[in-house]
Amino acid sequence: YRCIQREHLSSSFSSSMADLKSTFLNVYSVLKSDLLHDPSFEFTDESRLWVERMLDYNVRGGKLNRGLSVVDSFKLLKEGKNLTEQEIFLSCALGWCIEWLQAYFLVLDDIMDNSVTRRGQPCWFRVPQVGMVAINDGILLRNHIHRILKKHFREKPYYVDLVDLFNEVEFQTACGQMIDLITTFEGEKDLSKYSLSIHRRIVQYKTAYYSFYLPVACALLMAGENLENHIDVKNVLVDMGIYFQVQDDYLDCFADPETLGKIGTDIEDFKCSWLVVKALERCSEEQTKILYENYGKPDLSNIAKVKDLYKELDLEGVFMEYESKSYEKLMGVIEAHQSKAIQAVLKSFLAKIYKRQK
Amino acid sequence: YRCIQREHLSSSFSSSMADLKSTFLNVYSVLKSDLLHDPSFEFTDESRLWVERMLDYNVRGGKLNRGLSVVDSFKLLKEGKNLTEQEIFLSCALGWCIEWLQAYFLVLDDIMDNSVTRRGQPCWFRVPQVGMVAINDGILLRNHIHRILKKHFREKPYYVDLVDLFNEVEFQTACGQMIDLITTFEGEKDLSKYSLSIHRRIVQYKTAYYSFYLPVACALLMAGENLENHIDVKNVLVDMGIYFQVQDDYLDCFADPETLGKIGTDIEDFKCSWLVVKALERCSEEQTKILYENYGKPDLSNIAKVKDLYKELDLEGVFMEYESKSYEKLMGVIEAHQSKAIQAVLKSFLAKIYKRQK
Ligand SMILES: [Mg+2]
Ligand SMILES: [Mg+2]
Ligand SMILES: [Mg+2]
Ligand SMILES: [Mg+2]
Ligand SMILES: [Mg+2]
Ligand SMILES: [Mg+2]
Repeated sequence: YRCIQREHLSSSFSSSMADLKSTFLNVYSVLKSDLLHDPSFEFTDESRLWVERMLDYNVRGGKLNRGLSVVDSFKLLKEGKNLTEQEIFLSCALGWCIEWLQAYFLVLDDIMDNSVTRRGQPCWFRVPQVGMVAINDGILLRNHIHRILKKHFREKPYYVDLVDLFNEVEFQTACGQMIDLITTFEGEKDLSKYSLSIHRRIVQYKTAYYSFYLPVACALLMAGENLENHIDVKNVLVDMGIYFQVQDDYLDCFADPETLGKIGTDIEDFKCSWLVVKALERCSEEQTKILYENYGKPDLSNIAKVKDLYKELDLEGVFMEYESKSYEKLMGVIEAHQSKAIQAVLKSFLAKIYKRQK
Repeated sequence: YRCIQREHLSSSFSSSMADLKSTFLNVYSVLKSDLLHDPSFEFTDESRLWVERMLDYNVRGGKLNRGLSVVDSFKLLKEGKNLTEQEIFLSCALGWCIEWLQAYFLVLDDIMDNSVTRRGQPCWFRVPQVGMVAINDGILLRNHIHRILKKHFREKPYYVDLVDLFNEVEFQTACGQMIDLITTFEGEKDLSKYSLSIHRRIVQYKTAYYSFYLPVACALLMAGENLENHIDVKNVLVDMGIYFQVQDDYLDCFADPETLGKIGTDIEDFKCSWLVVKALERCSEEQTKILYENYGKPDLSNIAKVKDLYKELDLEGVFMEYESKSYEKLMGVIEAHQSKAIQAVLKSFLAKIYKRQK
C-alpha cells in the first residue's frame, strides 16, 4: 500500500462524503495503474493507451453510488470503530469492482439495445475507431475485476467466497439480460407476453443482485461474515432492488424530465415496464385495444395515447400505494433483524431510494 | 454422479478414442442438463429452450480437440493407473469448460470480425432472431464455466487455483484479442505496424494460453500438482501454441483448400500473418512496394500478386526451416524435463501438430 501513502490517502480519513469520494477516486488511480502494468500481459504502448482511455470513459464517469455503498456499508458493519488504512483501501477496491462490473454490463447493453448516449456522452461503441472492439473492451472490463480481486484479496480467508460471489451475481445479471432480450425482441412485438411475473424476474435478475445485494455482500465478507448465514439480508435487498426498478419505470413516464435528467423512452421502446404490466392488469377490453395499438410506436401521438390511458387507470395512485406498502413491508423485515449494524446498513439503502424523484 | 451411472458411462471405460469421445459427449449432456436447471436462476420455458439451442449450436459442434486433450493429458499423468469414474467425469467436465471458453470467444469474435460462417454453418449472430443477443449469449457461455466449476469442484483442494487459472487465461486471451483488433483495425490499413514481435504477442495471448497451456494446466491441477512448479511446462506449451499458429498462417495460404477444409482469406483480410511479417523482413524496396499496394485488397489479382511475391521470397522454404527448427527446439526442451509423465503429455501435443496438413 505504498502507492496510497504516496498519494496521501491517509490524510482523507475523515468520514465526510466529499472526502470519501476523493479517497475513492484515488483508489481508482491505483487500480488503473496496476491494470496498465499487469505482468500477465505484455502491453504495447498503443494497447496501454487504449485501455486507459476505455477505463476513464466507461468506469470513472458514473455516479459511483454502488461502489461507494460498499464503503458505507462496511463502516456501518464496523459500528463506529475506525477503519484501518488497509480496510479503507480494500473496501474502496471492492466498490470499484462493482463499478467495473456495471461498466462491463452497460458497454455491452448499449450495443445490444443500439443506444445512442450514456451518461450524457455517446455510448462507447459509437466513439470513432471503437465500434465492435467495444465487445472485447466489455470482456476486458469483466476480466479486470478478477485481476483486482486476485492482486488484493488472494490471501484473505474470504477470497474464494468473494470470487464465487462475483461470479454468481454476474451469472444472475446475464440471465436477467437474457429474459429481458428475448421477451422484448424475440418475434413480433406482443404485449401478451408481458406480466407482473416476467417483469419481476427481469428486474430481479438484471438489476437487483448486482446493484443492491452485491455491495452489502462484499461488505459482509470483509467483515468476516459467512454469506450463507445472511439469506434474509439477500432477500430484503433483492426486494429493495425490485422496488427501485419499479420506481425507475414509474419515473421514466411520470417524472419531470428536468429533475430526472433525461427523457423517458420506455413506451416507444416497447419496454416490459411495471406501468404497462399494471395497465394490462387493469384495462377494460376497450382500453386493452388502445394499449396494443399504441405501445411501442415512435410517434408522439401514440405515446400520448398511452400516457392518457395510464392517467385514466390512475397508475400514479397505484404506484403511490405500491410505494408505501413496499416501504412498510421492507421496514418491517429490517426492524425484525437481530443485528443493529445490519439494520443500519439496510436502512441506509432504503433511505437513499424511498420517495426518490430521480 | 447418479446421472452418469444412469447413462451407463461406466460401460465405456475402455481407452479407445471412439469410446472416449462418446463418454465425453455424455458428460456434455449431464453438464447441459445441470445448467438448464440451475437453481440460481428462475428459467422461463422460453429462456430454457433458448439456452439449450444456443449450447447445442455453439458448444457441442466443435472438433473438441482442446477438451479431449484434458482427459488424454490426465491419463498420461496417471501413468497407466486406471482412472476412477469420478476422475473420468471430472476430467471430461474440465475439458468441456475449455470448449465452453472457446465457444464464448468464437461467438464474440465472429461478431467483431463480421464473419459469415463458422464450422460450416452461419455464425450464431447471423441466425434469424439471434442478432446482437449473441453478445449476451457469449457472456452466458463464459458464466457457465464457473457454474460448472462451482458445482463439481468447489470442495476440491485445487478449486481456487482452478478458478484463478481460468480467469487468468481468459484475461490473457482477451488481451490478445485486443492487440489483434487494434493492430488490424485501428486507423488506416498500415503494414508498417506489422512485425514479428507484434505477431508473436497476438498469437501467444490470443491462442496459445487457452489452446495449449490450459488443457495441461487443468490436468496438472487434477493430478494434485502446484502450477507454480511448472512454469517450464507453461513455457514450452506457449511456444508450441505459437508454432501451431505459424502453421495456421502458413496453411491459410499454401495448403490445398480441399485438405484444409476451407479457403484461406488472410491476405485479403489484411491479417497480421506470420507470412506477411516474414515477407516484410525479406523484401527489397521494390518488393515492399508491391506488398503495400496489394495486401488487404479483395481482388483476385491483388491476392495473386501477394502470393507470387511469397513464392519469390521462398516463404515455403523459410517455413520448412522454421518448422524443423521449432520441432528440434521443442523436443530438446521436452526431453530435458525430469518427469517422464510430463514428457509424454508434451510429446503427445507436439505429435498432434508437427507437420500437420490441416
Ligand atoms: Mg439498455
Ligand atoms: Mg438492455
Ligand atoms: Mg428505466
Ligand atoms: Mg475471427
Ligand atoms: Mg478476430
Ligand atoms: Mg488462420
